[in-house]
Amino acid sequence: MTLTHLDDSDRPKMVDVSDKDNTQRVATASGIIKVSNEAYEVVINNSAKKGPVLQTAVIAAISGAKKTSDLIPMCHPLMLTSVKIDVQELPELPGFKLYATAKLVGKTGVEMEALTAVSVGLLTIYDMLKAIDKGMIIENIQLEHKSGGKSGDFNR
Amino acid sequence: MTLTHLDDSDRPKMVDVSDKDNTQRVATASGIIKVSNEAYEVVINNSAKKGPVLQTAVIAAISGAKKTSDLIPMCHPLMLTSVKIDVQELPELPGFKLYATAKLVGKTGVEMEALTAVSVGLLTIYDMLKAIDKGMIIENIQLEHKSGGKSGDFNR
Amino acid sequence: MTLTHLDDSDRPKMVDVSDKDNTQRVATASGIIKVSNEAYEVVINNSAKKGPVLQTAVIAAISGAKKTSDLIPMCHPLMLTSVKIDVQELPELPGFKLYATAKLVGKTGVEMEALTAVSVGLLTIYDMLKAIDKGMIIENIQLEHKSGGKSGDFNR
Amino acid sequence: MTLTHLDDSDRPKMVDVSDKDNTQRVATASGIIKVSNEAYEVVINNSAKKGPVLQTAVIAAISGAKKTSDLIPMCHPLMLTSVKIDVQELPELPGFKLYATAKLVGKTGVEMEALTAVSVGLLTIYDMLKAIDKGMIIENIQLEHKSGGKSGDFNR
Amino acid sequence: MTLTHLDDSDRPKMVDVSDKDNTQRVATASGIIKVSNEAYEVVINNSAKKGPVLQTAVIAAISGAKKTSDLIPMCHPLMLTSVKIDVQELPELPGFKLYATAKLVGKTGVEMEALTAVSVGLLTIYDMLKAIDKGMIIENIQLEHKSGGKSGDFNR
Amino acid sequence: MTLTHLDDSDRPKMVDVSDKDNTQRVATASGIIKVSNEAYEVVINNSAKKGPVLQTAVIAAISGAKKTSDLIPMCHPLMLTSVKIDVQELPELPGFKLYATAKLVGKTGVEMEALTAVSVGLLTIYDMLKAIDKGMIIENIQLEHKSGGKSGDFNR
Repeated sequence: MTLTHLDDSDRPKMVDVSDKDNTQRVATASGIIKVSNEAYEVVINNSAKKGPVLQTAVIAAISGAKKTSDLIPMCHPLMLTSVKIDVQELPELPGFKLYATAKLVGKTGVEMEALTAVSVGLLTIYDMLKAIDKGMIIENIQLEHKSGGKSGDFNR
Repeated sequence: MTLTHLDDSDRPKMVDVSDKDNTQRVATASGIIKVSNEAYEVVINNSAKKGPVLQTAVIAAISGAKKTSDLIPMCHPLMLTSVKIDVQELPELPGFKLYATAKLVGKTGVEMEALTAVSVGLLTIYDMLKAIDKGMIIENIQLEHKSGGKSGDFNR
Repeated sequence: MTLTHLDDSDRPKMVDVSDKDNTQRVATASGIIKVSNEAYEVVINNSAKKGPVLQTAVIAAISGAKKTSDLIPMCHPLMLTSVKIDVQELPELPGFKLYATAKLVGKTGVEMEALTAVSVGLLTIYDMLKAIDKGMIIENIQLEHKSGGKSGDFNR
Repeated sequence: MTLTHLDDSDRPKMVDVSDKDNTQRVATASGIIKVSNEAYEVVINNSAKKGPVLQTAVIAAISGAKKTSDLIPMCHPLMLTSVKIDVQELPELPGFKLYATAKLVGKTGVEMEALTAVSVGLLTIYDMLKAIDKGMIIENIQLEHKSGGKSGDFNR
Repeated sequence: MTLTHLDDSDRPKMVDVSDKDNTQRVATASGIIKVSNEAYEVVINNSAKKGPVLQTAVIAAISGAKKTSDLIPMCHPLMLTSVKIDVQELPELPGFKLYATAKLVGKTGVEMEALTAVSVGLLTIYDMLKAIDKGMIIENIQLEHKSGGKSGDFNR
Repeated sequence: MTLTHLDDSDRPKMVDVSDKDNTQRVATASGIIKVSNEAYEVVINNSAKKGPVLQTAVIAAISGAKKTSDLIPMCHPLMLTSVKIDVQELPELPGFKLYATAKLVGKTGVEMEALTAVSVGLLTIYDMLKAIDKGMIIENIQLEHKSGGKSGDFNR
């Protein structure tokens, strides 16, 4: 069990992927925001408002995926070839579940890009609703699926 | 119950805070990352490694707080006057709990800055440990405390 | 007639506003994108699609306003207190007119922030529609109104 | 006629270019800024000043091209292999015409990079001259030429 | 002697300046780049080329000052009110000396902004000349003067 | 002797590397910060503090390498495949020497990335220690080694 992000002197490093193959990499992550009934109703019961709230989160999530290497110190800069976001309404929680799928043809995986997209999307929903409910909780940000690369596939 | 981030035509907007007072604002947020026993042991049992892993997260969290208005579309650019991060070891989970406290003397609150710092810090721990454990889950990102401003204090 | 952005040796500089008063500054800019009939129809005749196309432009415009000092070399970093975007449908052109209003309580005007928001919003509409029409033209990006500060008001 | 940037649920997405070929892509865009006689004279009649004004615009345009995927939400991050800017003096308008040519060996076109470079360059000229003339108008930002990629060439 | 950037647990922090006064802060830094005779001649003997080389450095230095809090993890985001750059030709070295002066009306000093501007400006000269000379050395980046704030003035 | 970053009209340009081969490029740069005895002692004699001071510099240096094309106007955006930082203690100076090695499989060299990493790392050490010593000097930022690409290897 080694920490790939530390060198022999235990200094943080950006892992050397120079010799890895350029293969297609895909990662899907998800996360949930649990909101109050009031906040949920305001978004869901008003189709004129649901659009802009959730689309702002979708757009922020996509932009967030592109900022991953700027946010996470040891992440490689990557040329993402696809980012897709889905938002599910969870009436029983109540809340929203946000999915992000990132793709790359490159030398390293895109798990962090998918997870960052989810985090930024959920933070944006929090921001849009925080005047109504400051007690919202972001939960279960997790990798759902990963394929491509030498370390093999991951499926939750 | 209104969505302050939508205008009369339901377009997203940056809320007008021009007429608000410059007061001292403080917000504390927290969040947890649940990791495998193996990942936890690698970090905790090796003081030479614990430092760089957790400090990378602390530094990323502080930098993340400063990027909030770049990440969250409707957030105001702010001149943060303080950001402090704490990391607790949770041996029973096992995992780590990260706290962020942001301060500002200004016209709007810093909840999003504290929440963004926590999110980026936890994502960084995920990144540092993902070669060992891809199943880690980020949980309970939430506002703990907020003070300052017209909307009053919040304490979880 | 002097170029305020050049010093005595004709080197570019960021103008010294240290001694200016903190006053309320407002600026409104506008611009137009002229699109083909086909592109216009696709957006306008489908309310399910009109929302995301125009809202993506609105969000990009707001984010763009916040990036002004990063884009325009001599612009001061500013703590915008408000950004609002409006989009008008121009069926006869056909095309869209985008308005941006930026506000600040500070030492320098926000014309560039309003103009940058308009430019980025219109570029985003171009991007959303370019698979249908690559011949679109962005026109008439101009300051509509400016108030606050020593140089007085401007109204087109 | 489809909006490639919307998915089946009409959510904005970054188009999936994973399976596209890496080919050489070139795009040229142009745009004009119309300025007052006074502003034009200050720049043109003083070679010591013309250099820094127009070069600031050139440099901002090149930097702007590199920021395209940060500004336009659905744009892919790209590794531009060339950006060239030209500025023409238009004494009869009076004003300036700015051209930007961007190149890439990659999976998607660089129209947005060329158009963004032009927009940022013209905004920079506005900024450099706005103490003399606030009524300047940015006009005719348009794609001139595009080659490479499956959608074929475009020539205005 | 304490390290103000570490908290009681020796974690990095952004120092709390919430209670400091808003006063005028000024800092000047300088640095040198030593270049080969050939590189120096190419720049100096050709006035058509000297302008763009040195102005690119000036513009990069000003933009660099604005990016300080993005580059240096514990730096506060600041609203700089002035940045001025000067470049001296040093024919005997040969090389160039770059000065940066930054100003702020705020709660913390601008030494890092002046030093960052100098560093980025000198790196830009290196970049512009590196096809001619890869052996150039950047030297003596140092604070020249600082005033404002509780810690008093500094003059080298 | 030509300035590759200027075009035929002496305008700055991003050099066209479209037709260059994708080869492995490596560059190592180094630089020194000379500090007071007091500042050196505080860092070195306290292992609890040495870690966070030097690791903050290491992390800032890696992040700085990734920002090179955002800082240096004519630099190409690059997908770095590796960044490693080393810090040596220089008790006799006293001070610290920071090394950065950057790698890329691509069309252009990574000298600027290595030099930028060194500069940002050293500025970060300055920032961490400036409450103790404002007279520190950053020296000898230079390329140590470069390989890959048509212009051949460089070894100091």
